[in-house]
Amino acid sequence: MTSKRPLILVTNDDGIHAPGIRFLIKIMNTFGDVIVVAPDSPQSGMGHAITINDTLYCEAIQVIKDEPQKEYSCSGTPVDCVKIAINKILKRKPDLCVSGINHGSNSSINVIYSGTMSAAVEAGTQGIAAIGFSLLDYSIEADFKPSEKFIKSIVSQCLSNKMPNGVVLNVNIPKLSENKIKGIKICRQANGHWEEKFDKRTNPLGRDYYWLTGTFVNNDKGEDTDEWALENGYVSVTPTQYDLTAHHAIKDINNWEL
Amino acid sequence: MTSKRPLILVTNDDGIHAPGIRFLIKIMNTFGDVIVVAPDSPQSGMGHAITINDTLYCEAIQVIKDEPQKEYSCSGTPVDCVKIAINKILKRKPDLCVSGINHGSNSSINVIYSGTMSAAVEAGTQGIAAIGFSLLDYSIEADFKPSEKFIKSIVSQCLSNKMPNGVVLNVNIPKLSENKIKGIKICRQANGHWEEKFDKRTNPLGRDYYWLTGTFVNNDKGEDTDEWALENGYVSVTPTQYDLTAHHAIKDINNWEL
Repeated sequence: MTSKRPLILVTNDDGIHAPGIRFLIKIMNTFGDVIVVAPDSPQSGMGHAITINDTLYCEAIQVIKDEPQKEYSCSGTPVDCVKIAINKILKRKPDLCVSGINHGSNSSINVIYSGTMSAAVEAGTQGIAAIGFSLLDYSIEADFKPSEKFIKSIVSQCLSNKMPNGVVLNVNIPKLSENKIKGIKICRQANGHWEEKFDKRTNPLGRDYYWLTGTFVNNDKGEDTDEWALENGYVSVTPTQYDLTAHHAIKDINNWEL
Repeated sequence: MTSKRPLILVTNDDGIHAPGIRFLIKIMNTFGDVIVVAPDSPQSGMGHAITINDTLYCEAIQVIKDEPQKEYSCSGTPVDCVKIAINKILKRKPDLCVSGINHGSNSSINVIYSGTMSAAVEAGTQGIAAIGFSLLDYSIEADFKPSEKFIKSIVSQCLSNKMPNGVVLNVNIPKLSENKIKGIKICRQANGHWEEKFDKRTNPLGRDYYWLTGTFVNNDKGEDTDEWALENGYVSVTPTQYDLTAHHAIKDINNWEL
């Protein structure tokens, strides 16, 4: 860590007023100079979406009086927030980008739907150390306090170690009191998927429409996965990459008669 | 391949009326029974976004008379289309899902922003062999004809070989006449990123807004990448996975003092 205070970009996908980001900002203020650039409204499930066919608004706001961070509210997606922060708001490349704390899990396959994690991934593609934090509690009244100690430990290590190239961290925190959390496990992403259920309804004009709902299915019995860690009372840290190449499959496909 | 005709799901991110998907449907009709479930409007840059805070419409439509496929137009994202197709429209799991042909490249880091590829990835998570096709030509008048031979070859091999577990294919086709395309290369995703530029304007009410633009930067000199293949006149086939774990980094992070 350099002697000057680190510059930390904070974003999320639940929106700038969500309790999770407010809690994360407070923690980050103990580590460095904080700039918040976050969506003006909830952006859950936006994945790595960017705004290319519409205008983007991004304006300085004060959410809470007398806190030291500067904050900007953006009309776009979490990934838009990171892009506009780097290009238009920050005077230099930040030392760290943290995203969250998400209200709800981003373990296993949820990482690909997650705006929280996509923001971290976007920062990673720009060469910035990045971490997405999620608490396994969807409630607006979720208790983020037990997360604090673990977030501090991970952020501190992230600032003092070099993040491996092309890697960002996906951190999920079980919904437990602090003394029930057993520690931190470095994990792989569990092999899981969603089984959808569409709730069909008819609108007042007689046209059918659907609500997407679904159930997460964990197909993975491994004890080195994020799902296992969370079920067993650990904070999961999954090193996550954006080189999506299935390197092991290149040989197989090379045997096809193309 | 079984003796019965394969069931093929076709989707895209440019919308059900885009020339790219119309061309792909025609090719797919030569292979099997085709069901189209595609967005009712352009969804480029939507990544793996899903619709969780809004209603979804999905209705049978006939786009072109006397073609054999059944078609459904959906108000959601490409990933929504795949989910609703599997859950509400298809009577059995399809043998193949193809997405595209996208108007524009999805090579290198573009894969993470791409609705086309996210649709293929979603099908992959549901255990369905899946391929995203993209032509390096954004024009509405793009000539898809040179792609045909290569798409047929890849689809044919995909139906007769088993797709490796947890893998979908990201196929990009250079903007060249058929006799200029040198063949097909199995590649890895090039290490690249986008450098943004935000075009700042002021709306009639005096409020500033931005348009996101940017330039793709290829940081990768490797000759085994999709970027190299495309620049050198080859169709690139990149096996792509949705296990985002940076397995190589687990050991590094385990050395942190967490």
